[in-house]
Amino acid sequence: MLTSNRLSPDRPHVGDGTASPVAPTHSQRRGISLDRVTLDPYGFWGRKQSINAEATLEHCASWMEQLGWLENFDRVARGEVTTERPGWQFSDSEVYKLLEAMAWQLSKSEDLALAAEFDLLVDRIAAAQNEDGYLGTAFGHPGLPGRYTDLSMGHELYNIGHLIQAAVARIRTVGTEDRLVDVARRAADHVCDAFGPEGSGMCGHPEIEVALVEFGRALEDDRYIQQARRFVERRGQRTLPVPALKGPEYFQDDEPVRSAKALRGHAVRALYLSAGAVDVAVETDDQQLLHALERQWEHTVARRTYITGGMGSRHQDEGFGEDWELPPDRAYCETCAGIAAIMFSWRLYLATGDIRYPDLIERILYNVLAASPSGDGRSFFYSNPLHQRVPGTVPSDAVNMRAEGSMRAPWFDVSCCPTNIARTLASVGAYFATADPDGLTVLQYASGIFGSDALTVDVQTGYPDDDSVGLVIRAALEAPATLRLRIPSWAHGASMVINGGATRSVEPGWAEETRQWKVDDRIELVLPRTPRFSWPHPRIDSVRGCVAVERGPLVLALESIDLPASWNIDDVRLDLGREPIPDESGAVIHAALVDVGAGDEPYTWNPHRNQAVDRMQLRLIPYHRWAERGPSTMRVFLPTTQ
Amino acid sequence: MLTSNRLSPDRPHVGDGTASPVAPTHSQRRGISLDRVTLDPYGFWGRKQSINAEATLEHCASWMEQLGWLENFDRVARGEVTTERPGWQFSDSEVYKLLEAMAWQLSKSEDLALAAEFDLLVDRIAAAQNEDGYLGTAFGHPGLPGRYTDLSMGHELYNIGHLIQAAVARIRTVGTEDRLVDVARRAADHVCDAFGPEGSGMCGHPEIEVALVEFGRALEDDRYIQQARRFVERRGQRTLPVPALKGPEYFQDDEPVRSAKALRGHAVRALYLSAGAVDVAVETDDQQLLHALERQWEHTVARRTYITGGMGSRHQDEGFGEDWELPPDRAYCETCAGIAAIMFSWRLYLATGDIRYPDLIERILYNVLAASPSGDGRSFFYSNPLHQRVPGTVPSDAVNMRAEGSMRAPWFDVSCCPTNIARTLASVGAYFATADPDGLTVLQYASGIFGSDALTVDVQTGYPDDDSVGLVIRAALEAPATLRLRIPSWAHGASMVINGGATRSVEPGWAEETRQWKVDDRIELVLPRTPRFSWPHPRIDSVRGCVAVERGPLVLALESIDLPASWNIDDVRLDLGREPIPDESGAVIHAALVDVGAGDEPYTWNPHRNQAVDRMQLRLIPYHRWAERGPSTMRVFLPTTQ
Repeated sequence: MLTSNRLSPDRPHVGDGTASPVAPTHSQRRGISLDRVTLDPYGFWGRKQSINAEATLEHCASWMEQLGWLENFDRVARGEVTTERPGWQFSDSEVYKLLEAMAWQLSKSEDLALAAEFDLLVDRIAAAQNEDGYLGTAFGHPGLPGRYTDLSMGHELYNIGHLIQAAVARIRTVGTEDRLVDVARRAADHVCDAFGPEGSGMCGHPEIEVALVEFGRALEDDRYIQQARRFVERRGQRTLPVPALKGPEYFQDDEPVRSAKALRGHAVRALYLSAGAVDVAVETDDQQLLHALERQWEHTVARRTYITGGMGSRHQDEGFGEDWELPPDRAYCETCAGIAAIMFSWRLYLATGDIRYPDLIERILYNVLAASPSGDGRSFFYSNPLHQRVPGTVPSDAVNMRAEGSMRAPWFDVSCCPTNIARTLASVGAYFATADPDGLTVLQYASGIFGSDALTVDVQTGYPDDDSVGLVIRAALEAPATLRLRIPSWAHGASMVINGGATRSVEPGWAEETRQWKVDDRIELVLPRTPRFSWPHPRIDSVRGCVAVERGPLVLALESIDLPASWNIDDVRLDLGREPIPDESGAVIHAALVDVGAGDEPYTWNPHRNQAVDRMQLRLIPYHRWAERGPSTMRVFLPTTQ
Repeated sequence: MLTSNRLSPDRPHVGDGTASPVAPTHSQRRGISLDRVTLDPYGFWGRKQSINAEATLEHCASWMEQLGWLENFDRVARGEVTTERPGWQFSDSEVYKLLEAMAWQLSKSEDLALAAEFDLLVDRIAAAQNEDGYLGTAFGHPGLPGRYTDLSMGHELYNIGHLIQAAVARIRTVGTEDRLVDVARRAADHVCDAFGPEGSGMCGHPEIEVALVEFGRALEDDRYIQQARRFVERRGQRTLPVPALKGPEYFQDDEPVRSAKALRGHAVRALYLSAGAVDVAVETDDQQLLHALERQWEHTVARRTYITGGMGSRHQDEGFGEDWELPPDRAYCETCAGIAAIMFSWRLYLATGDIRYPDLIERILYNVLAASPSGDGRSFFYSNPLHQRVPGTVPSDAVNMRAEGSMRAPWFDVSCCPTNIARTLASVGAYFATADPDGLTVLQYASGIFGSDALTVDVQTGYPDDDSVGLVIRAALEAPATLRLRIPSWAHGASMVINGGATRSVEPGWAEETRQWKVDDRIELVLPRTPRFSWPHPRIDSVRGCVAVERGPLVLALESIDLPASWNIDDVRLDLGREPIPDESGAVIHAALVDVGAGDEPYTWNPHRNQAVDRMQLRLIPYHRWAERGPSTMRVFLPTTQ
């Protein structure tokens, strides 16, 4: 007899502040509950969330069915011998990430078809679970290698981690009486049994850590948290077998989390691990570990992060580079690393309340997460470079290489990003506000309604394409409450007006107002989005002599489609003497075209010609919208005329 | 009964102009025969060749014995089932490259111990050969995958190609009556049978092409040349199965050699293929193919080559990048790609006589090939970056990762470079001169004696550490002959004096003198090695605002060991207002240290601080000698004060 996953209007209300992907037992800040968030479907993020629900979920499901990644579960369930297994060893995780996305989405609407599809997927997965709780379609079944025979690259615990995260979404939205939660609990128990205090080993790809802590929080079961702690502590002892051409750094097994100085190795691995380690530090009250992670975040953001908030400087090993190694053309900036950086930063924010974390989250939201999916939610960027040297080709309708070409592609051979986007967009409102005991903090400005026990605010804005944010109180307790607004670090000259009163200047940082709020109280916030030049640090060699243009939270880009045919994007020089002019969502710059003598020798006795032969105004578009008009070349950093 | 490979004083003299790795049937230029070249053991290259003979050959042999790469042949010979085979699928090729090195070295000296070792190695290899000529230890034997089941990555034909190249060295030095030549002939015949006109397929790693043409030349057997032509023509049809995360470009299977515009994909593959394709074009008189390769060389050298002559901009896929994608820090510049670029350029030079080819060869010789081996010939650079951001660690005495760290390492997991260096140094004199029907051309200035039928010249020089090259005629026919000297492209202000006569200015290009030469005639050539600034092309984004310093054929480098402890190499600025001063083999520059505010935000509203806080003169060393004094940081391109 199946437990029904179908939603019904009388389902128990779950969570007073807990319907969020992350809900620490104790923390400086408490994430808003997603049942208190309603994004405006016509707003920037609400629209993306709607497209995600209407297109991306089905898109992912249908690709995974077509490629046999779902059939993998059925074959295991039938006990067949697997001779050729489609998909990578981590393909199960894509199914689980899709389940997580569906779970969050189901909490927002009474979509019976989606609920039915969810149930069917859970049935197929549950049928593949072993008696002892093990779940996985790439190992441990007839024809396949044995369980945990390749901890370094096998992704078995990584997969189970994503299963558990999907279950957390269920607990937080429908409660613990749920078939998926049962499956995840058996899998988590199996992991604790197999890798517990007497055991050893860990997964080459972190993920189980962050999942187990949250599962422990959601079920109030310390066993899972202790297992996560164990995995975090085991890392950095150089015990993982290292496959050919990789080193222990790839897995963050070169140095313990507690003593490392910066994020390094495979970027998504490093960031997932860090997110889980913050969770462990918070739940075990391990201040030393927490501080180590804060320092690593700081070092990484100062020296190993792109202006877009993207992380991962190397295609090789999909990894971080050395300090200041931030090539724009070979920037990997995997979409999943952006999501993982939000996960890490969000946890540090909840733990500390430091505004630097939501500042970075904003940068990533608008310049990595928003850049990846196409307008129709059916194609995606895997990597997010800041300089496209040659126009790509229109991607195939078939499976694409993960990081090539300049166009969004419908699916990839390694296809971690589409489902990661799906689960993140389905729960994105969780990162926009915190529900404070004394009120509400608005962190990101998205049209929609955000409520805590103390205050409910209706945010009305065209942000990031508008300077104005209107906030209207929709509900307030009969007691003074604090409305706290994040003034972004770039928003110099910002101002606030409450109920039509005096204009008040606010500086980057927190703007707070404590009062007895009344329904229909109105705050007008103005965040001037004057386009601005942004200079890179002089140690970032790869963009020496270049400047980027930003506007509000948006990094802008020059795309070849906006150039005359005679202009080569790499010969454009930005005129720093004239300020950029606002233009729709982007800006117009003054630029020169130089004649660099393309036929010249590459290295010469005298400086090459570099003289302006033409001048004009050029339009820059938001980076997140590049490559929407066909194959093109593109630059974020522009050489200057000086 | 074994054919003896032992050298004896009465061995037949082989080769009138053919004792060279490359001897086209007809060409513009004819390589000098190595039996007419004697490098001065105290000269720059003679010393390296001696160290190669005395240390590197034994070093390679002992590593391969220790790692079981030689035992692989024995196990196959014994017919044992291989359960765990040590080494990569291409480890056989390292043995063959070592054999080639030994073969060239044996032609230079009566080293009976080396000859005995050579014989023993050939015995072990011969014993592993199949009845039908197949030879390989990674496929086609009990416990191993079947023959040619992984053409893309299996390297079976690549291995046989290196076997054949070793045999070519034997034919050119001891003649065809040789056990290794017999083995190679049976292997080559097998390849022609298995992949002939009725067959299909090719090797994922080109090499068999260049080998088969030379084998055909050496044995005057067109069958091998036609098979090479077939392999070249089959490429670019997208028929090779593409492994995960790679594309057809990696194998140069994306586009036919005949129509491609530039070298692309895996650099060594691209360059070996190009070398073989030139050979095919020359032997089949295919001018269209030859011109296509000339154009590809030109494009690649203008836009995809480092100032060191290094090629390969990406660690990912060890590959070429796009045009102008030449990051100094992540330069891969594999040593083997340098050797392969010499192979390609040398063949184009022989075919066309164009001076650009030996100009590039000089750049590669002094800044890639010379950079890789340590002074003792027992450790090597695999990759040759132009900017080392962090000091490496002293490499392990065990097997090292191929491209990490800033120190030369004794051996690598993928260890193609040491044996490639060994075979190249053992035959390097072949690239220094051509034996013209009417005289002799000196292309590279190395101390030693170089002879053609018409002229024998004794070159006496401290080059590249000396401006002067003395050339003394040691033998001349009783007829006018032409001595042709390459004046390097950088040698502005060069001059020449013949027999103490008037000083004659010579410009970069060919300097020729035709006369009835007499023994002891003396030419004094002066090539002023004034240190010079070298500006990169403005489209090379990664070194914008930077300049390199060169001196003669040497690229110079700033190494942290030559800086005061308080100076960070990345904050050094080169003062362009003051010319560099000659200093030993390098130069002294005027430099400033700037305070860049390391703690600042990575991207800011205003330019970062960049003010000089200290000034001093700094010593630059030849790039090829960097990292000889322990772990360090290093830069070739220096940001300027302007």
